[in-house]
Amino acid sequence: MSDNTQEYLVQVHTTTTQNTIVTPLEEVVTPLDNTSSKNVSGEGRKVVSEKKKIVGVFYKGNEYAKLNPDFVGCVEGALGIREWLESQGHQYIVTDDKEGPDSELERNLPDAHVVISTPFHPAYVTAERIKKAKNLELLLTAGIGSDHIDLKAASAAGITVAEVTGSNVVSVAEDELMRILILIKNFLARVPSVCLMGNGMLLALLTELMILKARPVGTVGAGRIWKLFTPKVETFSTVIFCILIELGWILDWRKRLEQILRRTLMPCFQSVMLLLSTRLLLSRQGGLFDKDKISKCKKGVLIVNNARGAIMDTQAVADACSNGHVAGYSGDVWFPQPAPKDHPWRYMPNHAMTPHVSGTTIDAQLRYGGGVKGMLDRHFRGEGFPEQKYMVKEGQLASQYR
Amino acid sequence: MSDNTQEYLVQVHTTTTQNTIVTPLEEVVTPLDNTSSKNVSGEGRKVVSEKKKIVGVFYKGNEYAKLNPDFVGCVEGALGIREWLESQGHQYIVTDDKEGPDSELERNLPDAHVVISTPFHPAYVTAERIKKAKNLELLLTAGIGSDHIDLKAASAAGITVAEVTGSNVVSVAEDELMRILILIKNFLARVPSVCLMGNGMLLALLTELMILKARPVGTVGAGRIWKLFTPKVETFSTVIFCILIELGWILDWRKRLEQILRRTLMPCFQSVMLLLSTRLLLSRQGGLFDKDKISKCKKGVLIVNNARGAIMDTQAVADACSNGHVAGYSGDVWFPQPAPKDHPWRYMPNHAMTPHVSGTTIDAQLRYGGGVKGMLDRHFRGEGFPEQKYMVKEGQLASQYR
Repeated sequence: MSDNTQEYLVQVHTTTTQNTIVTPLEEVVTPLDNTSSKNVSGEGRKVVSEKKKIVGVFYKGNEYAKLNPDFVGCVEGALGIREWLESQGHQYIVTDDKEGPDSELERNLPDAHVVISTPFHPAYVTAERIKKAKNLELLLTAGIGSDHIDLKAASAAGITVAEVTGSNVVSVAEDELMRILILIKNFLARVPSVCLMGNGMLLALLTELMILKARPVGTVGAGRIWKLFTPKVETFSTVIFCILIELGWILDWRKRLEQILRRTLMPCFQSVMLLLSTRLLLSRQGGLFDKDKISKCKKGVLIVNNARGAIMDTQAVADACSNGHVAGYSGDVWFPQPAPKDHPWRYMPNHAMTPHVSGTTIDAQLRYGGGVKGMLDRHFRGEGFPEQKYMVKEGQLASQYR
Repeated sequence: MSDNTQEYLVQVHTTTTQNTIVTPLEEVVTPLDNTSSKNVSGEGRKVVSEKKKIVGVFYKGNEYAKLNPDFVGCVEGALGIREWLESQGHQYIVTDDKEGPDSELERNLPDAHVVISTPFHPAYVTAERIKKAKNLELLLTAGIGSDHIDLKAASAAGITVAEVTGSNVVSVAEDELMRILILIKNFLARVPSVCLMGNGMLLALLTELMILKARPVGTVGAGRIWKLFTPKVETFSTVIFCILIELGWILDWRKRLEQILRRTLMPCFQSVMLLLSTRLLLSRQGGLFDKDKISKCKKGVLIVNNARGAIMDTQAVADACSNGHVAGYSGDVWFPQPAPKDHPWRYMPNHAMTPHVSGTTIDAQLRYGGGVKGMLDRHFRGEGFPEQKYMVKEGQLASQYR
């Protein structure tokens, strides 16, 4: 222990002298990009000089857009790639107007070559819209999660769909640990009494105020977020149940884990807490966690879902929170997004829901902005992407979606 | 990595078979108790058969008291020691009524031998009250933090003051990490938009949504909570500045760290985030973090304080949160407690304050209930306590308070 102390003290001096914070982005982004040259697609190679029309659909930043030059995820920030695109002669339309046939998105679809969208203000790219977009070659998701795109329709139309894999993993892993602590410590129930002065609510929560230490945490999915999340949770001495594997790039794990899936799935639902950190399930199994599966969880289970809202059966979650079988539900993903005013999760008890922003921290915006730039650059030069960035490639759904 | 996976899978089977969660309490409590026999006080040894009057002051559980048999921290739960005390012929008065000369506490003071109080519903034991308590031998704090007791008056009156050291450390360390994440991710600002539907507030916070990864965390204090907290924060790759040592039981560290205090104190205030995890400062330095010290922190600093409210200059914190110098302040300690309706921290912007409960989770209640029982048992038998449990011993303030 005294050796550790020594180490911190050394760090004090180093850091305060430099007065800079090094955020090692490269460990997430670079390993992917390094492999890109090996994944050049032979077919569909485009001429470098061809001018493209790119349509980006993001949320509006309004008066906040100028507060931070790194706030590139909004319409005004336009991912920080407008100057670069226009200097090459490409046309770049950016809008937040995405609903209905008169929307700016839909008016620009017929001659668009590339559409960039985000999970945070999703432009739903339906089969109908794909039919209208005669020139569309590429659908890029600035972030992770392309369930707003009809992947089958895109693949039938020969459109490539790709994501900036890995851009949100740090943000989301941190967000998930925060949500587990918030649920287990009933944080939101503690806040109002600061303003309300009473302590009735406070007493109610004191009867069940717990610690995370030594409680089992089960995860569904074991991808990049899981890799970052696991060492954090382990410092609480909890047990991780890993019951489904997510990403193709850890194929060697997948096989082994899928073998034990059948044996461990049901025991895991008996555990005190269930964490979902996968986006894979959606495409195969929307509403995977239905009334039946939730009823098999132990009473008092806490559920954190930063994966995709549609993984859950909406009404089953609301009912289980209301009758107390689920003691707390937290996440920032909804279906659809933004959630309609009458979405039951807005009104159910024991929830700690927020709008979908966990993967759009400033650092994540810079990552997915830079990722989109790099992928567009490759696309313009007729090069392919690293395999794991594809959702649809050459008319084929990516292997994890089949 | 695959070795780790293997391990989890083994754990799945072990844990689900046993279907129990082992909370290793002993690592916190036992090491202290093991040393007790070496700390027997030679003087003041009492006859075992003497009957005592014990007064406990806790918060009321009301209709919630019966919901959980382990909810022993409330008046109704009475620390779970009523049967044991009464079976030995002692009188045990338990109340939440603690304010003013007509309160049940004050009416029972003149012939009380022992008063047990908690930091969560503090019975302020003033010099005046100590004068009234002619028979008082022992003031026990069920929990950590005895700043509600006038330690100098107690020592002048020859009254022993002791705490259940270590009872809250797991709960508080977890709570502090949660608060850091809540501040850095602006969690509370994200919640209302779920109900309010608008996204104006959401955009405002998106301009500054950060990750904890690689950001420096400075701590003031390096006691038991720090020991549990440090490995958790380290999984976020942050840097720990340890600038003041807390507890007497790690004396060997103290000397070394105090030597560097002068050199590192000011650089630490320049760090992005400052975490306070000490209760020591209060007795020597109420209002230690005043306008001057806060102004020396880097603009945008986040402050988490689960130590004691009085460590901070109340108005200086409110002003700094209002003018944006402090970007976020969170904690659950106030001065005084409960906080009056006009306490500025209730109304300042950028706060994530809650009432004081982090150290009274169910597991902590069982720990401090058990700790009080053990200490009373020793007191009745005329035995002393482990050194670090004393605030006042034989008319002397404990070394860390001198």
